[in-house]
Amino acid sequence: MTIRADGRQADDLRTVTIEKGWSAQAEGSALVSFGNTKVLCTASFTNGVPRWLTGKGKGWVTAEYAMLPRATNSRNDRESVKGKIGGRTHEISRLIGRSLRAIVDTKALGENTIVLDCDVLQADGGTRTAAITGAYVALAQAIEWGKANKFIAQKAKPLTDSVSAVSVGIIDGEPMLDLAYVEDVRAETDMNVVVTGSGKFVEVQGTAEGAPFDRDELNALLDLALGGAVDLAAIQTATLAAAASDDAAVPAGGAAS
Amino acid sequence: MTIRADGRQADDLRTVTIEKGWSAQAEGSALVSFGNTKVLCTASFTNGVPRWLTGKGKGWVTAEYAMLPRATNSRNDRESVKGKIGGRTHEISRLIGRSLRAIVDTKALGENTIVLDCDVLQADGGTRTAAITGAYVALAQAIEWGKANKFIAQKAKPLTDSVSAVSVGIIDGEPMLDLAYVEDVRAETDMNVVVTGSGKFVEVQGTAEGAPFDRDELNALLDLALGGAVDLAAIQTATLAAAASDDAAVPAGGAAS
Amino acid sequence: MTIRADGRQADDLRTVTIEKGWSAQAEGSALVSFGNTKVLCTASFTNGVPRWLTGKGKGWVTAEYAMLPRATNSRNDRESVKGKIGGRTHEISRLIGRSLRAIVDTKALGENTIVLDCDVLQADGGTRTAAITGAYVALAQAIEWGKANKFIAQKAKPLTDSVSAVSVGIIDGEPMLDLAYVEDVRAETDMNVVVTGSGKFVEVQGTAEGAPFDRDELNALLDLALGGAVDLAAIQTATLAAAASDDAAVPAGGAAS
Amino acid sequence: MTIRADGRQADDLRTVTIEKGWSAQAEGSALVSFGNTKVLCTASFTNGVPRWLTGKGKGWVTAEYAMLPRATNSRNDRESVKGKIGGRTHEISRLIGRSLRAIVDTKALGENTIVLDCDVLQADGGTRTAAITGAYVALAQAIEWGKANKFIAQKAKPLTDSVSAVSVGIIDGEPMLDLAYVEDVRAETDMNVVVTGSGKFVEVQGTAEGAPFDRDELNALLDLALGGAVDLAAIQTATLAAAASDDAAVPAGGAAS
Amino acid sequence: MTIRADGRQADDLRTVTIEKGWSAQAEGSALVSFGNTKVLCTASFTNGVPRWLTGKGKGWVTAEYAMLPRATNSRNDRESVKGKIGGRTHEISRLIGRSLRAIVDTKALGENTIVLDCDVLQADGGTRTAAITGAYVALAQAIEWGKANKFIAQKAKPLTDSVSAVSVGIIDGEPMLDLAYVEDVRAETDMNVVVTGSGKFVEVQGTAEGAPFDRDELNALLDLALGGAVDLAAIQTATLAAAASDDAAVPAGGAAS
Amino acid sequence: MTIRADGRQADDLRTVTIEKGWSAQAEGSALVSFGNTKVLCTASFTNGVPRWLTGKGKGWVTAEYAMLPRATNSRNDRESVKGKIGGRTHEISRLIGRSLRAIVDTKALGENTIVLDCDVLQADGGTRTAAITGAYVALAQAIEWGKANKFIAQKAKPLTDSVSAVSVGIIDGEPMLDLAYVEDVRAETDMNVVVTGSGKFVEVQGTAEGAPFDRDELNALLDLALGGAVDLAAIQTATLAAAASDDAAVPAGGAAS
Repeated sequence: MTIRADGRQADDLRTVTIEKGWSAQAEGSALVSFGNTKVLCTASFTNGVPRWLTGKGKGWVTAEYAMLPRATNSRNDRESVKGKIGGRTHEISRLIGRSLRAIVDTKALGENTIVLDCDVLQADGGTRTAAITGAYVALAQAIEWGKANKFIAQKAKPLTDSVSAVSVGIIDGEPMLDLAYVEDVRAETDMNVVVTGSGKFVEVQGTAEGAPFDRDELNALLDLALGGAVDLAAIQTATLAAAASDDAAVPAGGAAS
Repeated sequence: MTIRADGRQADDLRTVTIEKGWSAQAEGSALVSFGNTKVLCTASFTNGVPRWLTGKGKGWVTAEYAMLPRATNSRNDRESVKGKIGGRTHEISRLIGRSLRAIVDTKALGENTIVLDCDVLQADGGTRTAAITGAYVALAQAIEWGKANKFIAQKAKPLTDSVSAVSVGIIDGEPMLDLAYVEDVRAETDMNVVVTGSGKFVEVQGTAEGAPFDRDELNALLDLALGGAVDLAAIQTATLAAAASDDAAVPAGGAAS
Repeated sequence: MTIRADGRQADDLRTVTIEKGWSAQAEGSALVSFGNTKVLCTASFTNGVPRWLTGKGKGWVTAEYAMLPRATNSRNDRESVKGKIGGRTHEISRLIGRSLRAIVDTKALGENTIVLDCDVLQADGGTRTAAITGAYVALAQAIEWGKANKFIAQKAKPLTDSVSAVSVGIIDGEPMLDLAYVEDVRAETDMNVVVTGSGKFVEVQGTAEGAPFDRDELNALLDLALGGAVDLAAIQTATLAAAASDDAAVPAGGAAS
Repeated sequence: MTIRADGRQADDLRTVTIEKGWSAQAEGSALVSFGNTKVLCTASFTNGVPRWLTGKGKGWVTAEYAMLPRATNSRNDRESVKGKIGGRTHEISRLIGRSLRAIVDTKALGENTIVLDCDVLQADGGTRTAAITGAYVALAQAIEWGKANKFIAQKAKPLTDSVSAVSVGIIDGEPMLDLAYVEDVRAETDMNVVVTGSGKFVEVQGTAEGAPFDRDELNALLDLALGGAVDLAAIQTATLAAAASDDAAVPAGGAAS
Repeated sequence: MTIRADGRQADDLRTVTIEKGWSAQAEGSALVSFGNTKVLCTASFTNGVPRWLTGKGKGWVTAEYAMLPRATNSRNDRESVKGKIGGRTHEISRLIGRSLRAIVDTKALGENTIVLDCDVLQADGGTRTAAITGAYVALAQAIEWGKANKFIAQKAKPLTDSVSAVSVGIIDGEPMLDLAYVEDVRAETDMNVVVTGSGKFVEVQGTAEGAPFDRDELNALLDLALGGAVDLAAIQTATLAAAASDDAAVPAGGAAS
Repeated sequence: MTIRADGRQADDLRTVTIEKGWSAQAEGSALVSFGNTKVLCTASFTNGVPRWLTGKGKGWVTAEYAMLPRATNSRNDRESVKGKIGGRTHEISRLIGRSLRAIVDTKALGENTIVLDCDVLQADGGTRTAAITGAYVALAQAIEWGKANKFIAQKAKPLTDSVSAVSVGIIDGEPMLDLAYVEDVRAETDMNVVVTGSGKFVEVQGTAEGAPFDRDELNALLDLALGGAVDLAAIQTATLAAAASDDAAVPAGGAAS
């Protein structure tokens, strides 16, 4: 088996860390790293739902993804300055939202809204999969906050499962797990796979960047992704089980001055 | 096997028709129907490429997707009026562009640009897959135009294969091909599959709308999609082989008054 | 009298056809052709009126005009992509709305709203006049739908007259009816005239593109326009009298997938 | 003949004044009043033309119209705050530009650009016609500036004629000239007529606000408008013949602090 | 002491005039001139407050600043055309609003809203300070209107003080009052000072344009500004005491045609 | 002297830390904390300058400020989603840019551009002053990078001084240094002061939030700010003197996947 540039084997994840409760302001938060990719995920809990959902006894979970302008190797103009959000940003925000809703029982959540913000502080490939993996931890923490603050019933189980995501790809004919940026740009086929803690698929998004791929290649990639998902689920479970970090509480309020 | 609302069996496509050369203005065009879904695809050929590609000896193919405001059962506000393009539109435009580029040899195309516009005139499910299927025909016609007008070398083969797309989904536990709108809203899992004429995958986009799906379900859906792709490729081939429709030529120009 | 490039005489309309009920989704629709100019007009009927009209016992009729990017001889960028609507589009949308409101009795319409969407699929001059002519047919059909569905009283007569429009212009000193694009670009004076079925003016918009025009030229153009309006009204009447086309009904719903 | 609310007869203009050279910054300017309607017109002269005209030996004249938020009886939101320009603003800007270009010989102007800004400081009906009438004076002054500064040849005659505009309308069945706001809202038919100094039409824009109008009404309105245009042309001529006002020159520069 | 280009001494204001009641449409208005800088300030009075303030028994005062495109020596594109408001405009609008709110007792104002529009007709330095100085007069007039029309209690004193503003700067090492544009561009340090009629500071905004400044320079600038503020307050008081100009009232309404 | 909520005395800064080189992607970076306020500052170095500066032998330094949506106690909508940048953001971005340019010798910088991005990850008052203080460190690091990579001459001294900023305010009549959010909302007067390492003023921005302030209060605030600036300059110097953190280098590239 080929040894990769960073010393990993084909089926190795990069070093993955999740710092739960990074933000002293949000109801849930996680600073997740997949190697040099770092994403700050916050979960904002609001009692109540958007108007179109009111009175149906269901909650709502949605997500927004963005990158800081210098998260990448060269600077990108801010989308706020350009005045519009690009297709890539839209696409990833929608993916994260769908992935989390797949493991949420909105009836058990009650008429509450949770917004996940996933901001990429530093990018080195796999930002959307890191975002999903970290957002799950922030979401779980926010749901605990909702219970502690009586917005969610104590016995309710809004989470039906856990969820994580990982990229896989074929490089020089060999399937590999969790691509770093230098690998990603060389991949002939690139796939993002979102998997529940119980090993089922939530999303499978495979794209032929170079040559189209056949059934065998597809199967090899899915095998790799399911393996990586097992490890990610274990890291999420351990993170959530650990005591919350001792965040010095920020006094109420915010931005002024 | 279940009989569907419109009388089809699980592995039947809807009636698919492709009217080549619908537009008297564009270098390539096709009005494609998948049942009641109707998409007008035009291919605009320009000699030259965007600035970032200049001088590399390569061409460029891109796509834009949109829906007329009353293509659907209730009217949607125009994106031009809202002043921004929604995430769904962006996502589908990008998908169509990637799908077509997967079967284009941009060196053989030379420094020429082809823009595919896919405008949904009437929607009944599967608009993005109909768009890809029709856009391929418009693209092929535009490439012929480019050869006839000496912008592409006579011996060049800019198309390495054909490409089509179809949706598949699981409804009440049963995998089904080419979902109409009423089926699509009920599907637990929904997948769009883009396949080359030679039977390889260009894109696989599967989403759990309800419960996550397992490996067996994924495999059953892929089998159905590959079967539908064979039929679609045959229709494309027949359409391109037929004599072009006798379009009364529109005199040069366009919009005024 | 000069014979024109397409064989017409100065006071001839191009071949005008109106396909009523083209859309299976809209409450009213018409695909109108003036020669190679083709415009899809849909009428969307909604029970209720905008907030500023509520409770006044009156209905509302408005219109939006747009062109597909490749309706013309060279491709135009989409207004949704540019993020704003151009002056020409605004101007024509307003003209169509005013023209239709001129023959609507909004009290008889009751508190209902009808939005006319006029999308130019192919452009060869006279798109705004074709749009008005077709929109009237879609509007009439939508009003019938409103009666059939009990949103409008059976005895109410929301339409006080019919309305159509045609362009006229002076080319090489000779007044001509219904200009095709090649004629339009050469016209010294260009006029769009909107006329009721009873032969009165709703709008007269004359513009000196080259030299200013005098009273005699103005009168000659108005004579031509009134003549064309008689023919257009007859075509509209015949179209509305014919049995609706057998549109295979589209099941409820719409856009997804 | 009916006496109007402000004491005028049907064929009377309101008091019209034009203050030439109001601005110490612009190359040409005029503060025009039609009664209580006040419009500040400035002409900005630039040597050179937009890229699409370069090298053709022709100049360019264009216009922009806007209203201050409290020009009218109740405040309107700024278009800059709304982030987009409304249809009415676009339509009037285009009308002003076309009207002025109709009396400009762009070859004689040479490769120079003149932008007319018409900002309504106070509105009481007829703002677009006042704008055209004032903009002509600013344009003429800017052309003199261009000659004095050697950007235009001394013997060149960029102006082929003068141009002015006036509104006419039918109120309670009676045709009237130069409508004030209270008259305008009551008019059944409203027409804006742009006329050259030599009495030819540049634009005729008639709209049935209430009932459609017939040929006789149209003729009566055109008669009134041509009469008003004679008076407006005389006022323009007198204004341009008068010595420029003694504007204390503003030192170079502008906006800072 | 140096004599300046326009003959002033270092501690002289330019000629300042305030024409109260310039607009026949607004509830309060003032056309203010600081030398060649001319700003039209209107105050729009509305009974009621924005939703977020409703029911708190307080009023609201806000401001918007803008420049006509040719207020300056060369033309600037309109912010409405660019589709967004620049940072400078935002910054000045906010400054004007804060400055006026500092001397308003919003409880005494009652649930009424006053919007100040400050439009620069001609710019020659100090536009923001002229705007604040003129806006105070328009505000005071609008409050009188509110009392006369019973929207504000007769005994209420919504104004706790008056407010004016002036620029100061250091040029060639010498502190100077009320900079004209040619001075402003040469200033090493530039400061805008907003002062109440009773001589207290509302805003102090000092910026080192060239070299940073020390405490002594800061003090010299503040001395100059406080001196100028005394004169400006006297002009405001005299203006408000004078009889309103006899504006011919504009009949109700506004913009049409 | 009053003891504050967090135990500080009136003239104490909060705990200030600056982590130099936080980003492995940017040429300069600093994660700065003023208590719970955390701002990530990156400096992006580009060889070359904007077009309007080309060929003048000078460099350019500019800044952009933004807050993550959940940096504050309740979530704010993203400016990219709203499609426009708010006035507060614009104002702070401009302040940061001016502050840094005040200590840069653009001739010594050569034709190079440095963009400072200051993104607030967590907000607890004083975000703009923290941003300026951190941005200076990122800027200094980027200039070192520019020398090491030969874009700046070895002997050049593009930095003429250092710069930091701190807020001061009057609370219950007492002047205090470096306000936390709970203090900031209670302050009657709020001032941001930007000071060079040599103790001179770059910006003084004082605002009466409640009652206007007098000369003595202004002086007390300036004294406090100058004291704080001495401490901040010492922290900056120490940070820059320390060895750079051992950032594992990120391979070239960036965002994909």
